[in-house]
Amino acid sequence: MSDFKRVDRPTNLISDNVQRVDQRETAFSRAARGDYGPAVQTSIVNTPLPRRYPLSFAQSEIIDQLARFEDNPVAASKAPIPDDHKILSEHIKQVGYFLQADAMGICLLPKSAVYSHDIKGNPITADYKYAIVILMRKEYRTIRASSGTDCIGDPVSFQSYQRGALVAETMANYIRKLGYPASAQHQSAKMARYQVVLPPLVLWAGLGEVSRTGIILNPRLGLGFKAAAVLTDMPLEPDKPIDFGLQGFCRQCKICADLCPSKAISAGDKAMYNGYETWKLNEQRCASFSILNKKGTICNRCVKVCPWSNPPTGYHNLVRRAVQHSSLAASIAIKASRLTGREKAHNEDKWWFDLA
Amino acid sequence: MSDFKRVDRPTNLISDNVQRVDQRETAFSRAARGDYGPAVQTSIVNTPLPRRYPLSFAQSEIIDQLARFEDNPVAASKAPIPDDHKILSEHIKQVGYFLQADAMGICLLPKSAVYSHDIKGNPITADYKYAIVILMRKEYRTIRASSGTDCIGDPVSFQSYQRGALVAETMANYIRKLGYPASAQHQSAKMARYQVVLPPLVLWAGLGEVSRTGIILNPRLGLGFKAAAVLTDMPLEPDKPIDFGLQGFCRQCKICADLCPSKAISAGDKAMYNGYETWKLNEQRCASFSILNKKGTICNRCVKVCPWSNPPTGYHNLVRRAVQHSSLAASIAIKASRLTGREKAHNEDKWWFDLA
Repeated sequence: MSDFKRVDRPTNLISDNVQRVDQRETAFSRAARGDYGPAVQTSIVNTPLPRRYPLSFAQSEIIDQLARFEDNPVAASKAPIPDDHKILSEHIKQVGYFLQADAMGICLLPKSAVYSHDIKGNPITADYKYAIVILMRKEYRTIRASSGTDCIGDPVSFQSYQRGALVAETMANYIRKLGYPASAQHQSAKMARYQVVLPPLVLWAGLGEVSRTGIILNPRLGLGFKAAAVLTDMPLEPDKPIDFGLQGFCRQCKICADLCPSKAISAGDKAMYNGYETWKLNEQRCASFSILNKKGTICNRCVKVCPWSNPPTGYHNLVRRAVQHSSLAASIAIKASRLTGREKAHNEDKWWFDLA
Repeated sequence: MSDFKRVDRPTNLISDNVQRVDQRETAFSRAARGDYGPAVQTSIVNTPLPRRYPLSFAQSEIIDQLARFEDNPVAASKAPIPDDHKILSEHIKQVGYFLQADAMGICLLPKSAVYSHDIKGNPITADYKYAIVILMRKEYRTIRASSGTDCIGDPVSFQSYQRGALVAETMANYIRKLGYPASAQHQSAKMARYQVVLPPLVLWAGLGEVSRTGIILNPRLGLGFKAAAVLTDMPLEPDKPIDFGLQGFCRQCKICADLCPSKAISAGDKAMYNGYETWKLNEQRCASFSILNKKGTICNRCVKVCPWSNPPTGYHNLVRRAVQHSSLAASIAIKASRLTGREKAHNEDKWWFDLA
């Protein structure tokens, strides 16, 4: 991530007035509560998403097993390692890459990013100074093969969630053995292993900019990743946010908004939402589409059609570089991307069975 | 793995008289029992290997957590998928690659590969027809940076063990949901998740040939991998063993034997050992060296110096191809490899802390 221009603040406005989020108010919680209507409620309660397909069901149970790991006590004495923020930051990122993370960053943990309450209404505290942010790539070949209305969306997500959980649990366990408190943050349906909202952490740790989908986009992975994190008090040096020109790019490019099957992505301008300037995703439309699609799981269409999600081949990396430095190159790349029919399901690479 | 010549039987002789192995007779069990002398016994009992270094200790606990996953019952009805050995084999390999396995193969489970007794003396049964074999790459950059007497050998091994455990547990869980029995086989210090000896499975599944180290060598990964497996009765089509000319190559090349710090690798000819023709590793010397090295974990020297362990760059892949088809090319490659000083610790890439 050292190739990208660093800036003092994220490229979208962030006010001082960000409110903490209650886990009971997230889209899937609201769907289960009936806020999105009885059809959506019945569907998510009777056939919860990752369990709808045997592979993602199997994957999610293994993540739950990882999440059941009981945090060991922090070692009584600190390991004899340098008490140097810069050296420890570099070390911990190298540990992440060694464990096969695809991108690593560090930020101060904004208090506003800690959820206020869990799904059962218990208040959440996560009193840590730093967040180590871990990105895991989604497998693009499978996304490219998928129609978006088949079952493979959740397995793609859970493949990244699984590997992120493995890295986060291992790293947190390692840091505790070095003598510092640490808590792994990753997806788990049964074990509530998230105490923090991850997108602001991805932003502040210099791992992406906000995109038209409302999701943070990484310049190497596009939208094709899942994030995990480790919260800790180990002395670290935060990274700075990055600016690779995405705000101008997404203003021009509306491929995701045009091709979203649920029309959940805004084709308009950014607006302020809970203190963040963003293109606001219509979460109800996005979640309801996947929940009501009985033959499929999540659609991944925006991940698939985004030009930034292309794999890191020599050619695509060249285009990535060009569009950062020239708005003309960006215009041409967007037009060319549209012409390639990015929404097409490439059946020649389909390897999974369709199963209800 | 489809690029390599397939043969009916492995390239080393295997008799019909292979005896099942007792887990109490493996090198680390014997070391702990005192068979290798009191110094080795004291050292392994007081400072067991992966726990000697905080990173491998942390990694091994997360693997134990995965291994505690209680196998779900097999689904009562079979999923409506084709009852076709070839199609199911192709599918299950694709699942493995999707979950980020580095190489996949399938064999009939030889009854002789099932351990006779576990570490506590209980008889082991593993009544499955097939073994799905999963190889996970070791991180070569770290091995190259390591001296072989430092602490990073175990973290390298456990990084591969961890990811192999994740793939094996997920795949076994998936197969059970499809309606077939399946059992994950992978490293775990606490949970005894191995019922089978893996090297013969790697051999029969066409994922490698026996090498001078006695370890099975994969033509793409060299010695730089760890194996895991899933045993199952799902109808599958076994792969055939491969022949990429390694028997002739290892006969000529003695780099590993010359550079092994414990002189555990034979510089002589193959011999029959428990029904297998192999270059017999002196397990006592190999295990004792790592166990007695208080400042380090396992040495990985043979993995590091083997010319086949080079990463899959264009250049190294070209050499791989050449040495398979020409013994002159093999001679030149071996001489060139020796000249590069493969045992050197590349300190410029060292990222870990030395900690007792």
